[in-house]
Amino acid sequence: MEEILPEEHEVDPTSADYYFDSYAHFGIHEEMLKDTVRTKTYQNVIYENGFLFKDKVVLDVGAGTGILSLFCAKGGAKHVYAVECSLMANTAKEIIQKNGYSDVITVLKGKVEEIELPVQQVDVIISEWMGYFLLFENMLDTVLYARDKWLVPGGVVLPDRTSLHLTAIEDADYKHEKINFWSSVYGFDMSCIKKQAMLEPLVDTVEPNQIVTQTQLIKTMDISNMTPGDVSFSAPFKLVATRNDFIHALVAYFDVSFTKCHKVVGFSTGPRSRPTHWKQTVLYLEDVITICEGEALTGKMSVAPNARNPRDVDIVVEYTFNGKRSQASRRQHFRMR
Amino acid sequence: MEEILPEEHEVDPTSADYYFDSYAHFGIHEEMLKDTVRTKTYQNVIYENGFLFKDKVVLDVGAGTGILSLFCAKGGAKHVYAVECSLMANTAKEIIQKNGYSDVITVLKGKVEEIELPVQQVDVIISEWMGYFLLFENMLDTVLYARDKWLVPGGVVLPDRTSLHLTAIEDADYKHEKINFWSSVYGFDMSCIKKQAMLEPLVDTVEPNQIVTQTQLIKTMDISNMTPGDVSFSAPFKLVATRNDFIHALVAYFDVSFTKCHKVVGFSTGPRSRPTHWKQTVLYLEDVITICEGEALTGKMSVAPNARNPRDVDIVVEYTFNGKRSQASRRQHFRMR
Repeated sequence: MEEILPEEHEVDPTSADYYFDSYAHFGIHEEMLKDTVRTKTYQNVIYENGFLFKDKVVLDVGAGTGILSLFCAKGGAKHVYAVECSLMANTAKEIIQKNGYSDVITVLKGKVEEIELPVQQVDVIISEWMGYFLLFENMLDTVLYARDKWLVPGGVVLPDRTSLHLTAIEDADYKHEKINFWSSVYGFDMSCIKKQAMLEPLVDTVEPNQIVTQTQLIKTMDISNMTPGDVSFSAPFKLVATRNDFIHALVAYFDVSFTKCHKVVGFSTGPRSRPTHWKQTVLYLEDVITICEGEALTGKMSVAPNARNPRDVDIVVEYTFNGKRSQASRRQHFRMR
Repeated sequence: MEEILPEEHEVDPTSADYYFDSYAHFGIHEEMLKDTVRTKTYQNVIYENGFLFKDKVVLDVGAGTGILSLFCAKGGAKHVYAVECSLMANTAKEIIQKNGYSDVITVLKGKVEEIELPVQQVDVIISEWMGYFLLFENMLDTVLYARDKWLVPGGVVLPDRTSLHLTAIEDADYKHEKINFWSSVYGFDMSCIKKQAMLEPLVDTVEPNQIVTQTQLIKTMDISNMTPGDVSFSAPFKLVATRNDFIHALVAYFDVSFTKCHKVVGFSTGPRSRPTHWKQTVLYLEDVITICEGEALTGKMSVAPNARNPRDVDIVVEYTFNGKRSQASRRQHFRMR
């Protein structure tokens, strides 16, 4: 048969590149761009707060398609340095040129930790670094590195505030479908996979009516002042039931805010807010907790980047419950990967 | 904070392993196992055709969790060799042991092309090798390699027959959402990504009422007799409209069958059949074809593994349309990756 050749203009990395470099594919950027809670918040922050950007030098950490850099350029920035380590950097360059911003935005392809910036200092660092469970992929470390290396004293980091929250849900049906499924697969016992499934937090959307308890603030991060070590932490929780129900899982989610805006702006990825591509993070408990209104599930959550794979996140939940109708005490490991 | 250690029993590959080895994660196997059209067909083939398996030596190519090997063992096979190259092989071994089949099923971790089989010949080769668009990931080559190396003369390959079909659909809204989206992203022109999106077939479910034309058989493969070279082919098509409508895309799908069963069994992944995890493969055309009932879109489809990345598939569609209300003639490249 005839030879099939790729188009001349096509960037043609190998499949191996794609495994290393999932952000090279447009699909992941499509999902993020179409998350309007995410993208419109950044757009509003930039367009409605000209005083933060006008004639300022901006660094965009993890620029992707270049959308935030384009917002900043259109919003009056003097210059924007858009750093992107995936192959999407080439596409961003093409987009920026096509839209006539090549003299305002400079795309730098490479890792923030390795590139050289043509300037000594920047006035603003903007980044959409948040991963699932806030910390998955650990890009916050890269933002803090950039802050310490280039941000002018008194400069602005956007967003500058984030918090992680924990609540508890009833989830009998879905836990059965995702976890107990492995107990009998077409009649065979695959419970060793059940262990793997329990270990891995599930990124999925939770219905507000599944929530059984109040919400506990686990951690607040001040991106302007925190140290890289602050991404590892341990915090107690006390989840008080708002009704009689069963608890099958804990649910974690985060909020971000831009407190340097004229008026504080932000969004929540919680189950009571408009859904985002981050959804929520569900941690199934080994026990089913039979909880009565007013009783509390107490414990401690510990979070740290995995030692061998810092993009992964280790989570340990220790919990104790001493209720009228059930009791439990356990330490459970989870790993986001 | 305290150190967070993984559980003792946990297999703990690095993240890099996962990029190389997407089949190591249980999630992909969960999706395939829960595809009951797929898994129950294999189960029925094995349980209802004892004469094919009883006291036979079986080779399972790409065993995954080991489900097909377990079916074969339960179905009376003398011995099953389950070859799996991902880390899932370790899990399969554990599952097989747990279910008491360790003396009937031998798991061999490695590539079919590299492992040594403890026997000279096998009576049956079973495999669920089909990828998106039938040929994505090119695992059929591995089945043919195993057939030529180990299958006893007169032995059985399951499945042994597959065919690829093509039809055409109306898809204005979704084409707009997936393709034209890039023309203006929050006001910016990202049409260079539109080119990437057009190049990549979309794996998605098509509604039967979107189908505008008859269906064309593109290729039939006889797995027992074909040569590896037969996975590259070129075939003409003629798609006759069954109503006045617009054509936005071609849609490809495949059928498989097990003709060596007592009664032929199989399934289709077409838009009029029960949905499977393979969905359908949508190839958006550059032109919108305004077609009248009885008119035909004609052309040629060429398919071949990509030269540099044989797991990827190159597809070229040449089409001509000369209708009362529109005309078009074009050659379009696609790449599954």
